[in-house]
Amino acid sequence: LVDASPALVSVDWGTSSFRAYLVDRAGAILDALPEGKGALSLQAGEHEPHLTERLADWRAAHGKVPIIASGMVGARQGWLEAPYVACPAGAAEVAAASVIAPAPGLGGVRILPGVSYLDAKGAPDVMRGEETQILGALAAHGEDGVFVLPGTHSKWARVEAGRIVAFSTYMTGEVFAVLKTHSVLGRMMEGPSKGANGEGFARGLEAARGLEHPGDLLHAAFMARTYGLFGEMEGADLAEYLSGLLIGAEILSGALGETKAIVIATPTLTARYTTAGARLGVKLTPAPENCATLGQIEVARRLGMLPA
Amino acid sequence: LVDASPALVSVDWGTSSFRAYLVDRAGAILDALPEGKGALSLQAGEHEPHLTERLADWRAAHGKVPIIASGMVGARQGWLEAPYVACPAGAAEVAAASVIAPAPGLGGVRILPGVSYLDAKGAPDVMRGEETQILGALAAHGEDGVFVLPGTHSKWARVEAGRIVAFSTYMTGEVFAVLKTHSVLGRMMEGPSKGANGEGFARGLEAARGLEHPGDLLHAAFMARTYGLFGEMEGADLAEYLSGLLIGAEILSGALGETKAIVIATPTLTARYTTAGARLGVKLTPAPENCATLGQIEVARRLGMLPA
Repeated sequence: LVDASPALVSVDWGTSSFRAYLVDRAGAILDALPEGKGALSLQAGEHEPHLTERLADWRAAHGKVPIIASGMVGARQGWLEAPYVACPAGAAEVAAASVIAPAPGLGGVRILPGVSYLDAKGAPDVMRGEETQILGALAAHGEDGVFVLPGTHSKWARVEAGRIVAFSTYMTGEVFAVLKTHSVLGRMMEGPSKGANGEGFARGLEAARGLEHPGDLLHAAFMARTYGLFGEMEGADLAEYLSGLLIGAEILSGALGETKAIVIATPTLTARYTTAGARLGVKLTPAPENCATLGQIEVARRLGMLPA
Repeated sequence: LVDASPALVSVDWGTSSFRAYLVDRAGAILDALPEGKGALSLQAGEHEPHLTERLADWRAAHGKVPIIASGMVGARQGWLEAPYVACPAGAAEVAAASVIAPAPGLGGVRILPGVSYLDAKGAPDVMRGEETQILGALAAHGEDGVFVLPGTHSKWARVEAGRIVAFSTYMTGEVFAVLKTHSVLGRMMEGPSKGANGEGFARGLEAARGLEHPGDLLHAAFMARTYGLFGEMEGADLAEYLSGLLIGAEILSGALGETKAIVIATPTLTARYTTAGARLGVKLTPAPENCATLGQIEVARRLGMLPA
């Protein structure tokens, strides 16, 4: 018989999001608390009370259960800093660099570190939270390769022998948002599109494929205005063009010549990137849901918080 | 003896700027009115009264003098639309596509068109005002080649046989501004730099030189955050890094393999681009001041408004 009694509380605690899962000894999810305050929307001293309040029902039902957390909760501006661990970093290195936030009422909270990387030119990069999701996708998928986590700051990581050996951040989502909201490009992006839905996205991807020099992106983005001026696209399609251009450029740069990668994202973003990748020759396979919890379980096993 | 009596009023009327010059038959500038309201800060019907008021003293002193204007004053949202003329476009084509705004009290105002370009892939681009500056620089410099007008929307144009045959717009200045003001990058850019002044700019130029894929720019921009996180640069130097990265990428893309170009800009921006170009192997030579007026004089000669 399977022992389905709660063995671990898994907290995925990002900048503006909070999700907690109750996990059994075998790593199966028994219950979930999908709502709470983001780690950076709380002030110093507010994290422990907030977590205690969120977990109160589980505590009443199951007593003290070991707690593990990852994401911005471990940033300098979070609850307790868990300094970045350098690449190459797998579950063992992440476990070794974790810290314990003293929380007497909760029995202490294990907080996982972020991961840092220095490229060949000495330029630094960081992730915090994504490394745990990659470890989770890796545990589920069981294969080295390239992993992408699209979003405001997309991450493309290379995994070898179970460890993250290199990664790059792309400001794709944020560049799209600031250009749409604050630049001259946004003015014509209001309202519905004229053509078939998705035409703009496809044209943006084609534009990305045609870029030759790195600076060409600064030019091709301006086409989100001139296509509108010339009546070739309008409204939402211009925004779709810009999105396709930026996502396409990111994929062609991030995939580093590989023709496949695992994508870890919400269903909407996964579909968007899968479509883009297919058009650009990069096959993107979706990772399972709850990668953060899956990764935390891997680390918890290394730490003896769960049976290996 | 030179006839120094006023023969032309030259109005450089951009989105948010207004400058007027009194020119003699030989093209020499006799007087200047460097202040006035931008063409897009005036409503429909306000352009003629504003110009009449600005030119009142010259009118009183010299009577009716032919008036020529270029820039956003000829946009759809300006005074009177002078539709874009397609590349290749030189002084003859610009003259032929100019329009006359009926302004009885002023004797009519000749407004020059912008120039449009369709690249080999059918993507459209536009300029309005810059074409006249290029014609002016060309008249002064007398040589075909590449011309760059840095700014919010930088233009790189190729001139052959006295005509603009191709050009590209780069959103360099606007991308810098929106990232600095509205993205996560701006938070650490306040305050003075730690290192020697200009170190950040030089490092940004080196980063631009190291870009391999078009999407790499979305990654290298994020370094304006991570260099700060790792204490390698701070404050203004992070902004300088981002500026150098974007300007460097623009130059390497815009110069199209050429090793020299003429730069048309304010002294500050000219110095910035000349420094960047020198580091990246593109020799930028400053154009004379008042290129807009020099270009208008060329067009005015074609139109018989000044002796050829």
